[in-house]
Amino acid sequence: MEKIDPWTLQGAVDYQGLLDEFGMEPMQAYSVTHDDLRYIRRGVVFGHRDFGRIANAMKGGKPYAMMTGLMPSGKFHFGHKMVADEIIWFQEHGADVFICAADLESYTMRDVPLAAARETAVKEYLENYLALGLAPKNVNFWFQTDYRTEYYRLRDMFAKKVTFNELKAIYGELSPGKIFSALTQAADILHPQLPELGGPRPVVVPVGADQDPHIRLTRDIASRFEAEFHFIPPSATFHKFMEGLQGGKMSSSDSKSYIALTDTPDEAAKKIMGAKTGGRATVEEQKKKGGVPEECMIYAMYLYHLIDDDLALSDIYHECKKGALLCGEDKKRCAEMVARFLEEHQKRKAKASAKAEKLAGR
Amino acid sequence: MEKIDPWTLQGAVDYQGLLDEFGMEPMQAYSVTHDDLRYIRRGVVFGHRDFGRIANAMKGGKPYAMMTGLMPSGKFHFGHKMVADEIIWFQEHGADVFICAADLESYTMRDVPLAAARETAVKEYLENYLALGLAPKNVNFWFQTDYRTEYYRLRDMFAKKVTFNELKAIYGELSPGKIFSALTQAADILHPQLPELGGPRPVVVPVGADQDPHIRLTRDIASRFEAEFHFIPPSATFHKFMEGLQGGKMSSSDSKSYIALTDTPDEAAKKIMGAKTGGRATVEEQKKKGGVPEECMIYAMYLYHLIDDDLALSDIYHECKKGALLCGEDKKRCAEMVARFLEEHQKRKAKASAKAEKLAGR
Repeated sequence: MEKIDPWTLQGAVDYQGLLDEFGMEPMQAYSVTHDDLRYIRRGVVFGHRDFGRIANAMKGGKPYAMMTGLMPSGKFHFGHKMVADEIIWFQEHGADVFICAADLESYTMRDVPLAAARETAVKEYLENYLALGLAPKNVNFWFQTDYRTEYYRLRDMFAKKVTFNELKAIYGELSPGKIFSALTQAADILHPQLPELGGPRPVVVPVGADQDPHIRLTRDIASRFEAEFHFIPPSATFHKFMEGLQGGKMSSSDSKSYIALTDTPDEAAKKIMGAKTGGRATVEEQKKKGGVPEECMIYAMYLYHLIDDDLALSDIYHECKKGALLCGEDKKRCAEMVARFLEEHQKRKAKASAKAEKLAGR
Repeated sequence: MEKIDPWTLQGAVDYQGLLDEFGMEPMQAYSVTHDDLRYIRRGVVFGHRDFGRIANAMKGGKPYAMMTGLMPSGKFHFGHKMVADEIIWFQEHGADVFICAADLESYTMRDVPLAAARETAVKEYLENYLALGLAPKNVNFWFQTDYRTEYYRLRDMFAKKVTFNELKAIYGELSPGKIFSALTQAADILHPQLPELGGPRPVVVPVGADQDPHIRLTRDIASRFEAEFHFIPPSATFHKFMEGLQGGKMSSSDSKSYIALTDTPDEAAKKIMGAKTGGRATVEEQKKKGGVPEECMIYAMYLYHLIDDDLALSDIYHECKKGALLCGEDKKRCAEMVARFLEEHQKRKAKASAKAEKLAGR
């Protein structure tokens, strides 16, 4: 019998190759001990660096922090929800939360005016985070353009002690803009360990694998400034990316590729009905050969977001595989689940507005 | 008869070569119209870029600004006084004054702790500026580590729009630290033209010729961001450097090379008595051949600082040239003039203490 693994989605990215090539460690070791996060137990969070530090801090009830950045452009969609769920999970497990809104980055890279970027950070990101369960109490939120003294000081200090060769070895082709970005990321990640922000402690950064160069650079820099700041090299978890509803990349610039958390149930249903599935050319063929859930965007919605019960998910997987589940009915079920989620979520989001403004210091 | 020029000091630096090679313009055109600044009429300020804009603003009573940086390490000496005199002259001629204390730079480049750098900026630099005549009213003073939002935003924006090739063409060998420094300088110089700091207007930066690369880069960047900020390319004046009292470089790390404005008259006299002159090996030879004021550090003190009356200076020059003035008596006269200056100056400095604290926002 063919080896089946209901937790592994197929996709364009060779995640195993990333582990092998860059020396990240597989997250599998934690898939049982940390199985209350769906993304860990299902291998969506597939790799890490130094997660042991974080696991120990969690276990021992010791201080640690979670640091993340958000790029305020476009709408907050289910791809972003995955990261938000991770943030909230770390918070529920004792992390101090640091969130940086990269308004400058969205301005310089995507031409989003700064005022609009700030508005998006608060109305799209913070409101959705809060509606998804983020508790404001120990959240340290800032905009890049707040130019926190302590962090820009770090960036300048780092600039004096990194070399071109080192940056080239990590990033390949360089430009002055890339160097600024890289050192800004390093300062973002390390500044929670400054005395005024809680001092040296483990920090975990949940990111996509494409961000690993920043993690490696930051870990190098942390070691280099160990004597001065007692930095602990930051840990990272690496997650897979949800594909777009029609296959390919989920992209803010293609509204059919994602479901926004502010879409109406009708808008969402239309996108779901048009989504790519793992179905066969004809109903007859599908009944005979079965579907391919690993390639199905509806199944991905279940796996990432809609179905937390592993047995229920497994049932769907096997029903699909044996041809007993057809795409039309499956899409309807998915649309209904999404509709229920959106209705509840949007009520919570509306209530979170004042809290979000407060968190942003506006 | 040999061509004589009482205003031109000999030195290691080929200033005419600088004008030729880098396309600065000679300041001579302004040596009559702007002869109330001793340094201009005597060719100490020997070159410029775009000074016409500044001359026009002065003449028309139009808004313009003067921007300068100070490196807070070591003692404030007569080399620094020259720059201070220029700053004050611009202020007296209608300039808004912007002064940046490069505390971060002195920390990262010279290992001066930040607190000590700030103390030096206030007690050594600001107090002396005020005692020399700086009026606090329209002075905008800041520390680099204040991390003014508007200016760090500029730096990041610039980083996205400059290329390596451009930086290499200007600076030669690069490092990440140099790139940060260069773009920091550009932001320093341009941020007075932001709307919140007075808007677009001519800005003059009085610097040594070694700072010309920053001026060129900043002028390029100003043009590139013209559409967005309406920047006017900054102007610059270039001054010669006073040599050290014993010849060679005047250096903060060699206290015999300079007279600090906080030296006692006795300390100053000792340094003057040990200074390099343009005297001959024997009194007889000097009486016969005459001295070489162009190579004399005592004469340099007169020319830069102690004698504002051109005729009086010219008399000394010719007396020396014809062998009628001997080094011993000349040094004594110089020491007496310095003693009188220091006594008066130090009284004014003591009175400036509270104003300096206020200007620094402490």
